[in-house]
Amino acid sequence: MRIGFIGLGNMGGPMAANLLKAGFDLSVFDLSTKAVEAAAALGARSVGSPAEIARDDVEAIITMLPAAAHVKQVYLGDDGLLASVQPGVLLIDSSTIDPLNAREVSAVAHAKGNPMLDAPVSGGTAGAAAGTLTFMVGGEQADFDRARPVLAAMGKNIVHCGGAGNGQVAKVANNLLLGISMIGVAEAMSLGVKLGMDAEVLAGIINTSSGRCWSSEVNNPLTGAPAARGYSGGFGTDLMLKDLGLASEAARQVRQPVLLGALAQQLFQTFSNQGNGQLDFSAIVKLYQQD
Amino acid sequence: MRIGFIGLGNMGGPMAANLLKAGFDLSVFDLSTKAVEAAAALGARSVGSPAEIARDDVEAIITMLPAAAHVKQVYLGDDGLLASVQPGVLLIDSSTIDPLNAREVSAVAHAKGNPMLDAPVSGGTAGAAAGTLTFMVGGEQADFDRARPVLAAMGKNIVHCGGAGNGQVAKVANNLLLGISMIGVAEAMSLGVKLGMDAEVLAGIINTSSGRCWSSEVNNPLTGAPAARGYSGGFGTDLMLKDLGLASEAARQVRQPVLLGALAQQLFQTFSNQGNGQLDFSAIVKLYQQD
Amino acid sequence: MRIGFIGLGNMGGPMAANLLKAGFDLSVFDLSTKAVEAAAALGARSVGSPAEIARDDVEAIITMLPAAAHVKQVYLGDDGLLASVQPGVLLIDSSTIDPLNAREVSAVAHAKGNPMLDAPVSGGTAGAAAGTLTFMVGGEQADFDRARPVLAAMGKNIVHCGGAGNGQVAKVANNLLLGISMIGVAEAMSLGVKLGMDAEVLAGIINTSSGRCWSSEVNNPLTGAPAARGYSGGFGTDLMLKDLGLASEAARQVRQPVLLGALAQQLFQTFSNQGNGQLDFSAIVKLYQQD
Amino acid sequence: MRIGFIGLGNMGGPMAANLLKAGFDLSVFDLSTKAVEAAAALGARSVGSPAEIARDDVEAIITMLPAAAHVKQVYLGDDGLLASVQPGVLLIDSSTIDPLNAREVSAVAHAKGNPMLDAPVSGGTAGAAAGTLTFMVGGEQADFDRARPVLAAMGKNIVHCGGAGNGQVAKVANNLLLGISMIGVAEAMSLGVKLGMDAEVLAGIINTSSGRCWSSEVNNPLTGAPAARGYSGGFGTDLMLKDLGLASEAARQVRQPVLLGALAQQLFQTFSNQGNGQLDFSAIVKLYQQD
Repeated sequence: MRIGFIGLGNMGGPMAANLLKAGFDLSVFDLSTKAVEAAAALGARSVGSPAEIARDDVEAIITMLPAAAHVKQVYLGDDGLLASVQPGVLLIDSSTIDPLNAREVSAVAHAKGNPMLDAPVSGGTAGAAAGTLTFMVGGEQADFDRARPVLAAMGKNIVHCGGAGNGQVAKVANNLLLGISMIGVAEAMSLGVKLGMDAEVLAGIINTSSGRCWSSEVNNPLTGAPAARGYSGGFGTDLMLKDLGLASEAARQVRQPVLLGALAQQLFQTFSNQGNGQLDFSAIVKLYQQD
Repeated sequence: MRIGFIGLGNMGGPMAANLLKAGFDLSVFDLSTKAVEAAAALGARSVGSPAEIARDDVEAIITMLPAAAHVKQVYLGDDGLLASVQPGVLLIDSSTIDPLNAREVSAVAHAKGNPMLDAPVSGGTAGAAAGTLTFMVGGEQADFDRARPVLAAMGKNIVHCGGAGNGQVAKVANNLLLGISMIGVAEAMSLGVKLGMDAEVLAGIINTSSGRCWSSEVNNPLTGAPAARGYSGGFGTDLMLKDLGLASEAARQVRQPVLLGALAQQLFQTFSNQGNGQLDFSAIVKLYQQD
Repeated sequence: MRIGFIGLGNMGGPMAANLLKAGFDLSVFDLSTKAVEAAAALGARSVGSPAEIARDDVEAIITMLPAAAHVKQVYLGDDGLLASVQPGVLLIDSSTIDPLNAREVSAVAHAKGNPMLDAPVSGGTAGAAAGTLTFMVGGEQADFDRARPVLAAMGKNIVHCGGAGNGQVAKVANNLLLGISMIGVAEAMSLGVKLGMDAEVLAGIINTSSGRCWSSEVNNPLTGAPAARGYSGGFGTDLMLKDLGLASEAARQVRQPVLLGALAQQLFQTFSNQGNGQLDFSAIVKLYQQD
Repeated sequence: MRIGFIGLGNMGGPMAANLLKAGFDLSVFDLSTKAVEAAAALGARSVGSPAEIARDDVEAIITMLPAAAHVKQVYLGDDGLLASVQPGVLLIDSSTIDPLNAREVSAVAHAKGNPMLDAPVSGGTAGAAAGTLTFMVGGEQADFDRARPVLAAMGKNIVHCGGAGNGQVAKVANNLLLGISMIGVAEAMSLGVKLGMDAEVLAGIINTSSGRCWSSEVNNPLTGAPAARGYSGGFGTDLMLKDLGLASEAARQVRQPVLLGALAQQLFQTFSNQGNGQLDFSAIVKLYQQD
């Protein structure tokens, strides 16, 4: 099966590598020559533009791009995918963008005769390399079924979230909650320690009580793995900041209040501006330890 | 073993009943004649004042009172426990109050020769009735060991949290996080649904992802048990509001910022003022559904 | 002097009328036939499209549109102003949009040889009708000088704020502060009254103290003119909500935290969702009086 | 007229000096020998305890103490004022404390036959030295009239705010708004500058627009006098933090939401913890300039 792949960055690169490893025939495009050469070394065919991939004889095209502006340009631009792609080719956008833009692109694609799925991922660069990503997929059931074997080569948890855009909705809603609960853990742990408790004891109690959450159990800002390694690696503060920006913008568009979410976004912005954008997002606890 | 028990309210009443059921000999006091009669009907001995319990030949005294003011009056008042109690009698305060007041009372008790534990509970009236409460206990190890068989008659999870006041610290920190994460779930679920997702599908995805928490899994504001029964019963909004008040006040005293926590407190206050103080605290999602 | 005017809504309509009254020769366009007819009745010439105005022999073109998307379409669209306008024609956009989009359009205009000013207004529909608007103008000094007589026919306070986009910056910054201080007044007045003070007495004290602000003096949510008339008319909640959305989005783009601003936005959204979007924004005090 | 004065700190010291200068006969008490000696050097009579002042032949007693705990001890303690003072002596508490504690002390005083006023001040140490303080006074009109000549020796703006506690209500409400609007100005100015505007130009526009407030006009965090002197002196961050703590606690007691106020308190706490507690509170703008 021949697949086009556009966007060979930190996430897209290892995802493409896993597709090649699984035996898919890949045509790839990226603005970075280096990224393209790396994929070519693993057996991918390099082409000169998104449009050229579209004109290529592919059954599906996967895009993995930084933001909605890039997605709209690659799909809807004058020399974009939809201007050239054959009807029936399955389009899969794994970029993380806001749901409304995702639905807008999907509607144009469907109007041109191309099924389209939004399929953002979680799991980070480690999950991309290991092929253990989670895909949250929005689109029609038949298209989801068709995409599943392709996605399964890159991830191990492939979830159908409903119609077009719902993959983005699921990701944005989950990460909104994740950002809030991480700060909640940072506040609760900081307060407990300031009041005299041992961090490990407190984490143990919370994790068997009603405060327990992924951020207290797996990624605890004081007692977890990121803290132990100085908050390097992991899910970066600036990535969380981006996702909270998508959440609050989507909320604004549908007139849905997100009070804690908006405040969480501003706190990650404050923390990022202090020079911490590259640290694991659990490092936000430092904002609470500045005395 | 003879035990004194002061405070036979919604929590204290069933706790005392479980002690009687377990064979303890109980002297009880409460301002409500009705509550005292109910305990007497189960075999408790009714006495006329806290001081009378203190003068009674008890080995331990348990208090379960609404707020710090009552605790200070019962222990430190002119006619209070510490004015009359024999040295060596173990004092256990299961009220939920702020850690600094708990430590102040504990220090006076120790100075008078009485070991004291702060032992606030979680589990609600249902847990109190079933004898399945969690006790978060602050105080010395030897005193904790001595109290354990007594507490075990009322709860099934008895956790030592460190020195005096740490039981209160653990509870206040856990419930601070709980209040924040519940609102986080309310925002994430409301946003997802407003953006077109099915609530059950979204809850399912969050609960297998990094947003998962007790509030999304066990007490989900849209898909959980409290929602299914119209938010009656459960852990009331006004109880959460009280605990967030304790958390923010404790934070103020030790100069610890709690930004999301302070906002969560104000949101529960806003919601309570709309007439919802008695609803399960997951009903806060209604604040996000007013259009 | 012949002027083109695009956008004859609640604001643009009376602004165009004042230009006609001042003797300017006007070519107008709006999608609403009714709005165009009203202007024509006052002496304006109706044309069929923005492009037609551009091709007309005008010295300046003023646009007054709802949002950035409309501004970009009218100026940059395939059949937009910049595709047809003669070099040298002065472009004045009085829409309220975010500064970065304003600068993007301005840069394209300058590249085409057209000076451009962003000139958002304050003063509302009453100011538009009375010709007493404030214009906050971004762009070059020479262009500002050229525009001043035109703007002076519609407003009485014409302020040069610096280079391109700075008119929008000034408006967005002022209204960010305005939204925050109005909620601040609502909270202070509500708290004072709940604690037993007379609202008029409290307003009097604040207005001679360090809490004084436009929102406490001119538009006090409890004692001001909008309150006296049931919050009808005035500067609507949904307009404030729009401006806070522009502010938080501009802040996100330049990575500037706006913590109170983001929360204020969410509070106006919450209040608007309760059915109050058309009320004067000082009605936000009702959110604090729901018990 | 003989007056007792208790509390000769940064505020009380110069206030007592102004009373002496105006010809009042003063008996003073403070725990600091140095402070007492300074007052004695100006003609005050030093006494050994609050009770001794109470037993002295004074017509009025003024207290200026750090917090409610001190006020309650000095008035209600076993050896406190109310245990010894002659009926009819006018009691004036100029401390800044929460309204409910003020009312509690006032009620006890009245029950003992002593009229009492709460009379917190604004104007800072500079106003105390210059005798230009503002007094916000709660209590009965007749008592207010009796106190006025005394207060006029220390301040120039003496405002009657209504019944007992209302002086504290007025102060707490004003300073709640002040804290919020200062952060609002900090956010608006920071955003405007980050978006490319000159701070002076922006301040000029805001100060003639609807965003104008005392914090933008008199104490602007970027262009005001405190900024020009490196934020030394002025109204300290920790004083604002204390007043916001009083406001949020009073709000909690009467179940009044203060969403922006609670967040403002947390932001000043965060900023104070970074080592800035002694800076003028307009320095909070630094929290927004950490990139």
